[in-house]
Amino acid sequence: MKNGKKGITASILGASGYSGAMAFRILLRHPHVDVENVFASSGAGQHVHDLFPALRGLTNKCYEDYSEEKVENSDIIFLALPAEHAMDIVPGLLKSGKRVIDLSGDFRLKDVDLYSQYYGATHRAIDLVADACYGLPEINRSSIASADLLSNPGCYPTSAIIPLAPLLKNGLIETDDICISSLSGVTGAGRKTTIDYSFAEVDGSVKAYRVGDHQHIPEIESILSDYSQKSVKVSFVPHLLPTVSGIYSTIFVRPKGEFRREAIEEVYRLAYGEEPFVRYHGTEIPQLKGVLGSNFIDFGWKYDAHSGKLILFSAIDNLIKGAAGQAVQNMNIMCGFQEKEGLIV
Amino acid sequence: MKNGKKGITASILGASGYSGAMAFRILLRHPHVDVENVFASSGAGQHVHDLFPALRGLTNKCYEDYSEEKVENSDIIFLALPAEHAMDIVPGLLKSGKRVIDLSGDFRLKDVDLYSQYYGATHRAIDLVADACYGLPEINRSSIASADLLSNPGCYPTSAIIPLAPLLKNGLIETDDICISSLSGVTGAGRKTTIDYSFAEVDGSVKAYRVGDHQHIPEIESILSDYSQKSVKVSFVPHLLPTVSGIYSTIFVRPKGEFRREAIEEVYRLAYGEEPFVRYHGTEIPQLKGVLGSNFIDFGWKYDAHSGKLILFSAIDNLIKGAAGQAVQNMNIMCGFQEKEGLIV
Amino acid sequence: MKNGKKGITASILGASGYSGAMAFRILLRHPHVDVENVFASSGAGQHVHDLFPALRGLTNKCYEDYSEEKVENSDIIFLALPAEHAMDIVPGLLKSGKRVIDLSGDFRLKDVDLYSQYYGATHRAIDLVADACYGLPEINRSSIASADLLSNPGCYPTSAIIPLAPLLKNGLIETDDICISSLSGVTGAGRKTTIDYSFAEVDGSVKAYRVGDHQHIPEIESILSDYSQKSVKVSFVPHLLPTVSGIYSTIFVRPKGEFRREAIEEVYRLAYGEEPFVRYHGTEIPQLKGVLGSNFIDFGWKYDAHSGKLILFSAIDNLIKGAAGQAVQNMNIMCGFQEKEGLIV
Amino acid sequence: MKNGKKGITASILGASGYSGAMAFRILLRHPHVDVENVFASSGAGQHVHDLFPALRGLTNKCYEDYSEEKVENSDIIFLALPAEHAMDIVPGLLKSGKRVIDLSGDFRLKDVDLYSQYYGATHRAIDLVADACYGLPEINRSSIASADLLSNPGCYPTSAIIPLAPLLKNGLIETDDICISSLSGVTGAGRKTTIDYSFAEVDGSVKAYRVGDHQHIPEIESILSDYSQKSVKVSFVPHLLPTVSGIYSTIFVRPKGEFRREAIEEVYRLAYGEEPFVRYHGTEIPQLKGVLGSNFIDFGWKYDAHSGKLILFSAIDNLIKGAAGQAVQNMNIMCGFQEKEGLIV
Repeated sequence: MKNGKKGITASILGASGYSGAMAFRILLRHPHVDVENVFASSGAGQHVHDLFPALRGLTNKCYEDYSEEKVENSDIIFLALPAEHAMDIVPGLLKSGKRVIDLSGDFRLKDVDLYSQYYGATHRAIDLVADACYGLPEINRSSIASADLLSNPGCYPTSAIIPLAPLLKNGLIETDDICISSLSGVTGAGRKTTIDYSFAEVDGSVKAYRVGDHQHIPEIESILSDYSQKSVKVSFVPHLLPTVSGIYSTIFVRPKGEFRREAIEEVYRLAYGEEPFVRYHGTEIPQLKGVLGSNFIDFGWKYDAHSGKLILFSAIDNLIKGAAGQAVQNMNIMCGFQEKEGLIV
Repeated sequence: MKNGKKGITASILGASGYSGAMAFRILLRHPHVDVENVFASSGAGQHVHDLFPALRGLTNKCYEDYSEEKVENSDIIFLALPAEHAMDIVPGLLKSGKRVIDLSGDFRLKDVDLYSQYYGATHRAIDLVADACYGLPEINRSSIASADLLSNPGCYPTSAIIPLAPLLKNGLIETDDICISSLSGVTGAGRKTTIDYSFAEVDGSVKAYRVGDHQHIPEIESILSDYSQKSVKVSFVPHLLPTVSGIYSTIFVRPKGEFRREAIEEVYRLAYGEEPFVRYHGTEIPQLKGVLGSNFIDFGWKYDAHSGKLILFSAIDNLIKGAAGQAVQNMNIMCGFQEKEGLIV
Repeated sequence: MKNGKKGITASILGASGYSGAMAFRILLRHPHVDVENVFASSGAGQHVHDLFPALRGLTNKCYEDYSEEKVENSDIIFLALPAEHAMDIVPGLLKSGKRVIDLSGDFRLKDVDLYSQYYGATHRAIDLVADACYGLPEINRSSIASADLLSNPGCYPTSAIIPLAPLLKNGLIETDDICISSLSGVTGAGRKTTIDYSFAEVDGSVKAYRVGDHQHIPEIESILSDYSQKSVKVSFVPHLLPTVSGIYSTIFVRPKGEFRREAIEEVYRLAYGEEPFVRYHGTEIPQLKGVLGSNFIDFGWKYDAHSGKLILFSAIDNLIKGAAGQAVQNMNIMCGFQEKEGLIV
Repeated sequence: MKNGKKGITASILGASGYSGAMAFRILLRHPHVDVENVFASSGAGQHVHDLFPALRGLTNKCYEDYSEEKVENSDIIFLALPAEHAMDIVPGLLKSGKRVIDLSGDFRLKDVDLYSQYYGATHRAIDLVADACYGLPEINRSSIASADLLSNPGCYPTSAIIPLAPLLKNGLIETDDICISSLSGVTGAGRKTTIDYSFAEVDGSVKAYRVGDHQHIPEIESILSDYSQKSVKVSFVPHLLPTVSGIYSTIFVRPKGEFRREAIEEVYRLAYGEEPFVRYHGTEIPQLKGVLGSNFIDFGWKYDAHSGKLILFSAIDNLIKGAAGQAVQNMNIMCGFQEKEGLIV
């Protein structure tokens, strides 16, 4: 932190999207952060509150076209851009000494071939991939603190990894029979103008999409495999839900050996008993509305003795714990702030 | 059919609920049915259009308190009552020569111990259970025609059994690894006044409920087991969806032996190629809005080679193909009418 | 009608929009109409059910690019195009002997200067304007029967003119103190892909728009002025409502002289007592859901003695009575069919 | 304030309703307030987070049955009870030296005959009515600071009075031609379990209700009349909107004499230029989503020269600026805290 400032200075690229705007909104109330500039290729010149009327009166900033000199006073840069943008921008930022929190998928996969396969593009900053730190504090806090390039998790992966990780690490469930049925609100698709996301098409409906080829599949599998030191495979089906926000994941798994309730309870308590943003529900089923507007993940489970399946349920706000809130949580860890700062309202 | 009438005469018990009112609405446009009386314990004396304003101008009928003499001219009786009512009313109706279509779960399970376990009540018309005909035309048409007591399928079971039945019967999938994640609109819970179904609680949210103990589990399993002549087990998770109507089921199954696309295509074509209300989508994923307001079931599938799971997707309108529409479809079969009569609009 | 056909043959231009597709859907169930072709500039080659999955199984037609020879067997042409298209197409169609039902605003205003002012374009078929028949059956039935160019009313005007017309004609209310606050579902804006109509922006919100310059203002005023033989002025405020369909209009007017309930009741009874699609509610307030999916207009009124205002309430389905349903109602009148044909389901 | 505490201590009666729970939520983040107890007649014994899952982890409090000794350490009491409760509880609280903020309508009308007429009950604490302070800071800040009994404004009145008051006070509009068409989300009706507020009935619909006899009519009129020193009459039509939260008011008024834009701009600037929670939009039309979750009121206007009407538009969150947020704003003024404390997130 520099003299005379309340803490650090940040800038946001892609601040006209839902995640980027949410990051801005959270930083506006953060006691230790000043926002230098917010960038948006399409909205440059417009006030932020023209696009996000809720921010009127809270900020007078306008969107700008990005250039590196406009972030020269920023200590940390949030990238909330579509895939394939961060990989071109990050190298320069790191060279000029900035720390970067990337909300896209560009640095989440250590295997660049998987990146090519699922993102449909060749990676152009391969040498940085290995050093990027996957920013899921619940499984990875210690390495986040010193990261210069923080790769912020995807929304679906956050909802799936947190309930699955302790069970896999402790060998309580099979690694090859994991079925994830996830529901996402419309903002999960970004601030899109295609007919698929119009109110007239979405309201009252629901549908699965990108079955078997969603880019969050390798993210979920690789993070869980690394963490548990086992080869993990998942079957993942995302659905578009007629809500603005939120992700709700229902996960069917098979207990390894005999089901023991106490073992489940214990690994979860050990894993998350002290976590500031994990609300463990035990065998109570969470609902989506409980987490909307917050950085919490709510999760619980039921054992269906009849079929022998253990079923996990998790809920997050896709724009907060699934994107911007988690990014700020990571920033707090990186900068030595209290982890909850700016995130409890 | 009697002289001078356009066909048959019907009455509806429980016509102030969503399913009963929908049955009434469909019968109003049916060219071969006159409705004698509509009954509702709570709304007696009120016009139907006081509760269902869409019916204003289409009928001038009022709800009445039920008594047997008020259905003496009716050939067929629709029962759209909560569980445990039909079992007391059906015996008398059958004795007086009526044919009955029961939309409740009272006669869906042949095993009355399962009924006790899942419905929490002792069955009081055990001798009729064996004769009740399960009215899912797609698997059972021939026995429907002559039924006097027609047990109309549950909404979730309709959405699950149709895509699963041909695969199980032909031995294409394992019988003990079936995970069903279903989403239901709010009318699925009936015309309830509890806070759980208020707009303020439901809108923007979603949650799983009754995991592992829903009464549709034994219905799905017993019908599929009978049909396929195999012992079938399912793990079933229903969710409350923020929509008025509709059911969307995502079903994870495991192919038996090597997956063969042609085999799947063939069994479905053979099973449903001529079905008037099955719209088979192949590997195209259906969406809920496609079926709302209609008696169609839309379903399709994807094979996720990566995880080895075959995933089925189905969509119905819970009040039509999942209740009143299917009841009228059954009535058409029972009475020798064209099966689509009154059901294509 | 030609030999061997069930009645007439129709084609639809703009059938990929919500109104055009609804017209197609209604005609599919119309007993006296065959649809020759459906046209859409953007979707040519696609099946109609690719855009409107509800129509799968009901039709196998594909969209085509329009050319005049493709409608040579059509007796009647529905134009469901954006403004400024019909004026170029209609002259040719009329010359080749087709009858035309235009759902756009191109022929609704007799005063082409008003057209220029509110539509922002010079009219290019001025000579046809005078002969175009405004197709609101409730005030204009007799002249519809013989129309060759039928100009189908706007959605807001339909909701406003029907309750206002009899009061104005009979001098029961002032002509210069009429405040109309209307709410419209999202399909009222057409099948748009702008961010303003995305689910994430519309859900949970509401806003007024185009206050004082909406093109339906001169339509409401000119039709009411002609009908009542008085100069009528309205203040009209449309709002975007977070629903897929429907228009709900709340209209504040001032009684002329002393308020007399019996006079109101009588003029409405005389005006609409026999109307097949007007459900007059008296002093009961209608709700939007009562009319969704139907061609009805529900309307009622309250007299607020305290403030001296008479308040009218009306509800229609914007795509049916506000567009395609009314168009078919007009077609029925033009072709001598029963007026309800195809419109009661 | 007492020693060792961070400021004051508060308790809330009716904290299981939407307004009371929102007050609790805001106080939880307020830096100068400790909450002693939260009361609810129906939910006593339950955790607050059982009813409001969003509060899990933020508080561990349970609801209790109310008795006066349970608030003995509280400096200020929030009453969020249905009408007719506060009038029986307030006298005792004031006697024991508590300050009271009543969110109900019990003390909003100085004329107890109007209370009887619109609330259908005889007032039982008539001697306190005169001293109750109407807590709309924008028109009444100075008298709020010293109030012991603060009557918090209704939601609709807040949305109507703020845009109307300066125009009336300065004689810019007629006092007898004011038409208010307001839209309210479902929480405005309280945490109700009647079928009218069920998702299945509300979603996709809209309707006017209580036209001409709503209890907010005399509140709007008496406050505006007092403030402007003129006799003000309004025609008020509330509607139920298919949203969870929010109020949107569209208000038609008639300028007095010639319309002068500058005059409008000036009186608004003078009235609200320094107000912390008024976001004046000028001739830009606000939208509901801009204010949801905040204590802001957004308002703007359009002059429709064509009809001579001036039209005002305002938007608030009914539970925040329309209830609990405004209550905390009033508390801040009463206790000498910064007015925004706890209210900007």
